[in-house]
Amino acid sequence: MITLNQAIDIILSEIQLSTKTEKIPLWNSLGRVLAEDIISDMNMPPFDKTAVDGYACRMIDASKALEVIEIISAGSVPKKAIGMGQCSKIMTGAMIPKGADCVLMVEDTVEVAKDRIRFNGDKPKSNICILGEDIKTGDQAIPKGTTISNQHIAIMAALGCSQPVVTKKPSVAVLVTGDELVEPEVMPQGGQIRNSNGHQLVTQVINANAEPNYFGIIKDTEEDTYKALSEALSKNDIVILTGGVSMGDYDYVPTVMQKLGIQILFDSIAIQPGKPTKFGVKNGKLVFGLPGNPVSSYMQFEILVKPAIQKIMGAKSSTEFIARLPMSTNFSRKKVERQGLIPVAITNDKKVIPVEFHGSAHIFALAKADGYIMIPLGVAEIKEGELVDVRPL
Amino acid sequence: MITLNQAIDIILSEIQLSTKTEKIPLWNSLGRVLAEDIISDMNMPPFDKTAVDGYACRMIDASKALEVIEIISAGSVPKKAIGMGQCSKIMTGAMIPKGADCVLMVEDTVEVAKDRIRFNGDKPKSNICILGEDIKTGDQAIPKGTTISNQHIAIMAALGCSQPVVTKKPSVAVLVTGDELVEPEVMPQGGQIRNSNGHQLVTQVINANAEPNYFGIIKDTEEDTYKALSEALSKNDIVILTGGVSMGDYDYVPTVMQKLGIQILFDSIAIQPGKPTKFGVKNGKLVFGLPGNPVSSYMQFEILVKPAIQKIMGAKSSTEFIARLPMSTNFSRKKVERQGLIPVAITNDKKVIPVEFHGSAHIFALAKADGYIMIPLGVAEIKEGELVDVRPL
Repeated sequence: MITLNQAIDIILSEIQLSTKTEKIPLWNSLGRVLAEDIISDMNMPPFDKTAVDGYACRMIDASKALEVIEIISAGSVPKKAIGMGQCSKIMTGAMIPKGADCVLMVEDTVEVAKDRIRFNGDKPKSNICILGEDIKTGDQAIPKGTTISNQHIAIMAALGCSQPVVTKKPSVAVLVTGDELVEPEVMPQGGQIRNSNGHQLVTQVINANAEPNYFGIIKDTEEDTYKALSEALSKNDIVILTGGVSMGDYDYVPTVMQKLGIQILFDSIAIQPGKPTKFGVKNGKLVFGLPGNPVSSYMQFEILVKPAIQKIMGAKSSTEFIARLPMSTNFSRKKVERQGLIPVAITNDKKVIPVEFHGSAHIFALAKADGYIMIPLGVAEIKEGELVDVRPL
Repeated sequence: MITLNQAIDIILSEIQLSTKTEKIPLWNSLGRVLAEDIISDMNMPPFDKTAVDGYACRMIDASKALEVIEIISAGSVPKKAIGMGQCSKIMTGAMIPKGADCVLMVEDTVEVAKDRIRFNGDKPKSNICILGEDIKTGDQAIPKGTTISNQHIAIMAALGCSQPVVTKKPSVAVLVTGDELVEPEVMPQGGQIRNSNGHQLVTQVINANAEPNYFGIIKDTEEDTYKALSEALSKNDIVILTGGVSMGDYDYVPTVMQKLGIQILFDSIAIQPGKPTKFGVKNGKLVFGLPGNPVSSYMQFEILVKPAIQKIMGAKSSTEFIARLPMSTNFSRKKVERQGLIPVAITNDKKVIPVEFHGSAHIFALAKADGYIMIPLGVAEIKEGELVDVRPL
């Protein structure tokens, strides 16, 4: 059995970077990956501009009563240069007139006569944003491979990029196996339960900014599994199957993967939950055989499939937002031959508490979890007060 | 000037909870807020079921060679009860036959003759998920007020909720003022710059799962501001204006808010950036006057407007995912009369480093930030090694 890190390395080394790109409207670009650097087409600010409302003048004159020679609104170009004893009234964001080297804040001035003001503040400050101090023409503002988040929108708008070029979303087929399954609309009878992880995987794909392609519940026969997997493979970049990967008589997924010429690169991982996870490739396409238990398929998607989607989209890895917090209780487990993924909640006083968890079919446990922690191979215990890294769910 | 916490309290106390709800498809429900409890319509598991592939038998017989009397696939109902010395082959997820109290894992068995197997594992385990152990009919699975995330999808699917009832998205108008502004498609001339925070606010609204309604750049006249704000107010639950809130001659926002009968509840906050932020109400609708600087408007949206949107949607507050990490360097500031919001990056070795920041027009600083920290009123310094709470951006 390979370790989780080995599994991730195998998956990522198989990925051919997407070269397909598209232009999309700025408002639709959250979560997408930039396919081109965003280069500044201008200096920002494009001129020396005032950071405040006030009076532009020479700092050397700040102690004098000053004549107001012009009113400069934002967006206009000053007509007059500032001479000795002069100032221009100026609005936030407006261009600094020639001759001025500071702006006296309007709050710190008094009108002493018509068109004459005097500074009554503490000490005059510059209050000028210098041409190009934020970015210069030709500078790289955002590198390609960046996953676009809210912080990037203002920058792209400011630099004229209203239609960013991003990589295309990979299409991800979701196939569910299991003759015990019915869709949510149906009331289960006899030995049936409802299909939960198929829908969970669809929204996980949506959340990962890829394109889901739901194939529904596939009958547990070799023929049906072959047909569905073959079609899914021909039309998608990634295929996820859930269920049918264990040791049961009707677990056709491994056989069918082989018959379709999919090269199986691993068929189990030393991880709990998720041990029977399988991974194969064919013509650059990725096939994941995830366990049928919804907690397993949830976690394996987050840990294995999501990084694959991100790499296909050309995303550079970003900072993982991990909370390092103390355990509120002792935690122990009996078997240590697999790395463990433990759903946890964060208490109000910022401690970590494992959620009650009946095993990998226990989807209700995840709803109470704020994140999960990893417990390494060979480790049986985490002690109360020990700091653990909580990854968000 | 009021504090940030006072400002938040004022805003939240003005909110009338939305009673408008709608049914939406499960796949579209991420980020939406449940308007009804999700109640289980069945026991989960709905029957005693096997967690593994193997042989269902009486644990007392586990040391004997056992006769295989039936093959039970997932989804079917067992036809035969297990007697002494008997077992049924059973697939993961299938119903446990009468008489059996454990399942021997297939990996731990050998076939000793046709239809006869023997356990050769260490010690037999139950491997049975008991009827109703995860949830019982009529139990609350997810309370109303929950913001739907990936973890809830499997639960809703499992319980037959393919069309959850959620609260309607509030509509949020975005109005931008500033005669210096042109839209991103235009190359700025003279004293112009491009409108960046209007677009940033639109995507912030999208990210907050509300409905943006972009009104574009409003001319800096009292008449235009009045007309646009009046229309926005009549058609939206929340109106955000940016710019026009300072001390400039053309800052008509406060005047127009008053003329429209909007009750102004505060007009500045002891926060940096974002001091001139204004807030008013009319007929249960909320009006935010945010500063025109994009960093200010970004932060004020996250801190003030987003919680308001969440409360309107009926969202119960959820655990904030905060990373508590040490500062990599000393940080100091000169003025302490406002609470400070400092954009920071997280280094590879999990330390916190403030990003270079020229002031509230410096949108490029935010792109390098992983989160932000707060520095309290009256505090001038944070020392290297001190633990700080980093909130994600």
